[in-house]
Amino acid sequence: MVVREKILDLVVSCFKRHGAMGMDTPAFELKEMLTEKYGEGSGLMYDLKDQGGELLSLRYDLTVPFARYLAMNKVKKMKRYHVGKVWRRESPTIVQGRYREFCQCDFDIAGQFDPMIPDAECLKIMCEILNGLQLGDFLIKVNDRRIVDGMFAVCGVPESKFSTICSSIDKLDKMAWKDVRHEMVAKKGLAPEVADRIGDYVQCHGGVSLVEQMFQDPRLSQNKQALEGLGDLKLLFEYLTLFGIAEKISFDLSLARGLDYYTGVIYEAVLLHTPTQAGAEPLSVGSVAAGGRYDGLVGMFDPKGHKVPCVGLSIGVERIFNIVEQRMKTFGEKVRTTETQVLVATPHKNFLQERLKLIAELWDAGIKAEMLYKNNPKLLTQLHYCESTGIPLVVIVGEQELKEGVVKIRSVASREEVAIKRENLVAEIQKRLSES
Amino acid sequence: MVVREKILDLVVSCFKRHGAMGMDTPAFELKEMLTEKYGEGSGLMYDLKDQGGELLSLRYDLTVPFARYLAMNKVKKMKRYHVGKVWRRESPTIVQGRYREFCQCDFDIAGQFDPMIPDAECLKIMCEILNGLQLGDFLIKVNDRRIVDGMFAVCGVPESKFSTICSSIDKLDKMAWKDVRHEMVAKKGLAPEVADRIGDYVQCHGGVSLVEQMFQDPRLSQNKQALEGLGDLKLLFEYLTLFGIAEKISFDLSLARGLDYYTGVIYEAVLLHTPTQAGAEPLSVGSVAAGGRYDGLVGMFDPKGHKVPCVGLSIGVERIFNIVEQRMKTFGEKVRTTETQVLVATPHKNFLQERLKLIAELWDAGIKAEMLYKNNPKLLTQLHYCESTGIPLVVIVGEQELKEGVVKIRSVASREEVAIKRENLVAEIQKRLSES
Repeated sequence: MVVREKILDLVVSCFKRHGAMGMDTPAFELKEMLTEKYGEGSGLMYDLKDQGGELLSLRYDLTVPFARYLAMNKVKKMKRYHVGKVWRRESPTIVQGRYREFCQCDFDIAGQFDPMIPDAECLKIMCEILNGLQLGDFLIKVNDRRIVDGMFAVCGVPESKFSTICSSIDKLDKMAWKDVRHEMVAKKGLAPEVADRIGDYVQCHGGVSLVEQMFQDPRLSQNKQALEGLGDLKLLFEYLTLFGIAEKISFDLSLARGLDYYTGVIYEAVLLHTPTQAGAEPLSVGSVAAGGRYDGLVGMFDPKGHKVPCVGLSIGVERIFNIVEQRMKTFGEKVRTTETQVLVATPHKNFLQERLKLIAELWDAGIKAEMLYKNNPKLLTQLHYCESTGIPLVVIVGEQELKEGVVKIRSVASREEVAIKRENLVAEIQKRLSES
Repeated sequence: MVVREKILDLVVSCFKRHGAMGMDTPAFELKEMLTEKYGEGSGLMYDLKDQGGELLSLRYDLTVPFARYLAMNKVKKMKRYHVGKVWRRESPTIVQGRYREFCQCDFDIAGQFDPMIPDAECLKIMCEILNGLQLGDFLIKVNDRRIVDGMFAVCGVPESKFSTICSSIDKLDKMAWKDVRHEMVAKKGLAPEVADRIGDYVQCHGGVSLVEQMFQDPRLSQNKQALEGLGDLKLLFEYLTLFGIAEKISFDLSLARGLDYYTGVIYEAVLLHTPTQAGAEPLSVGSVAAGGRYDGLVGMFDPKGHKVPCVGLSIGVERIFNIVEQRMKTFGEKVRTTETQVLVATPHKNFLQERLKLIAELWDAGIKAEMLYKNNPKLLTQLHYCESTGIPLVVIVGEQELKEGVVKIRSVASREEVAIKRENLVAEIQKRLSES
């Protein structure tokens, strides 16, 4: 939980650094509002019937609710972040499914702007967050939905199969090409020669030079949509170079992003090395951040179909939590679960009153302080409590101190004690805390 | 949303100051796990049936999930806070009910400790938060569930009616005594003379002297339970005096707290004056924080019935949001929705590349910066954007600046501009931001 909080703090502060405002939307939507927006993913939506028999769905992601919000409130321009829970069923096939509840962190830019400027910022944000979290080396795969569709068209995929073939291609990060090919041919009825043509493309990845190469590709260069996508990617790489992050980005024709609502550039960040326990298998974590452009989604919720172009990203914080926890286990790192700075203690009986007065003074000065909830705790118990919870300072008041108008401050680490005047207590503690 | 965030920050930092760790529990529970724990309140639970027909309830509060967590994980001692959403139906009678989704902030101390020390800390926390939020003068009503039950017993309420009469009494903050009396007599079948005896008690409130007075009360002093409650309240007032908050606390025999799970001290904070618009009716807000001791709830979830005593509080942040918003409207206060410190701007065409390089540098230095997503925005548009969103500084780069290796920093408020060397930009902005 403490680790989660630190990770979320870093993510949110990056979103704020890029000028986003915080936003929240309700956890439920009417099911009919959602189903068609997700394509094949909608099988994992968690549906519920309320007391009145109304069919609801729990928030499956934060993107669709955002688009709906923009449409309903006729907002034409907005940069917002949203940290919230989403719910998904564990499997589309089991009816009595357990659901997974997890946290998502989204950043989106809505509005009609000049091409690729907000898109480049989204990639910059992903880099800043992944660098900030120190998860190790990473790569962001980039593609464009129009290039995917163009590739399908020139390879000879029937248009009715675009969406389902797209979700097959999307599995290439977890499955080998031959298995994906098998799925497309045997299960989805794609002609083998079409699958092989796709295979030639989806095994390509590289930098801006691959973009140039695809401009020259005899098939792809005949497709208007694909050319538009390539043109945008070229511009995007120019901006990414100015942002100093181009070497982190890989144009990857296998990236398809299964969700139906993407219309332009799409991206997904993967970690290149995952910290593991000595001897253990490398932990496969899949993508840790992803997103893309979805220019049509808002229009689907608008009664008149008015569009608001959007681009955004989602940080896979649950996966990141797991990675960080795994790493902490591997390296035996410990994290304090509280932030307490001072324990108010006494070596003598009948000093509850003095402890209560003293701790109230510390709280009122904004100092994080605890005391044991016992009338007469043993000094050793109090010191052990500091050691086991990581509290760095102890303030000790006893008979002698009370008589002399002083208190003792003890450093738990060094075991050094100094007596200071009672009235200087707050100032002295603040001084010590600011030094450490 | 920004206001909400600031309020939540203040609440959470107070919880941390008192040594609590953050915790989260799932949003759903099986309905059967919850129903009996809330007494009459359970009519407002939001029930849902999932795809498999399992009956679920959405989290109605954060206390019951906490108790369940302690029991399931056999945790005997814990100080935690939880900020999360809860859901309630708007009315227990309408079947096709709309639900309300709202945020709750809870702090609880679980464990076997010496009497009234954690309880006093809960009241101290409520005072710190209400003082910190500057909501105006407030009062915390305190009572003890054993005094309520003892009062019912000596007044002649049949034991089977304790719970329902308790929830009538609980309405005394919103309804006049005669209406509550009517409900108890006409609707709940209480004998009129019993109601009148209750009436004599529930109109009493005062400080520690009222506790002393009740010790002498000819009826109440005959009841063992009530005497235990009074004994604890006396001790509580002693600790509250040491904390310097006794004058904020009122022993109030009309405080009953409708929920079934309370077993000891109960409390509720109310604002004494609410800021209103000139001429408008005072806004009635009810309680803004409440809580109490619930020593039996964990045992209800434990297979062997092992008890873990608990005491806690909940901050009514939704009500507080409303009050703060109302106050801001009244005084015409504005809040920025973003925290952006710098806009990167240009007066010339074809300066997108320079802006992109510059802003990446600011982001990488942790400075909150924005730019307009246009290739060639007008300078006036850029300056207007700062004024309308409250961005205090503009960094301007143009042809002349580029040639001289400088950039201009403009203060939006004073309209003053100074040219500084390009390489000193980050340091200069950080200096200005730390001064303001």
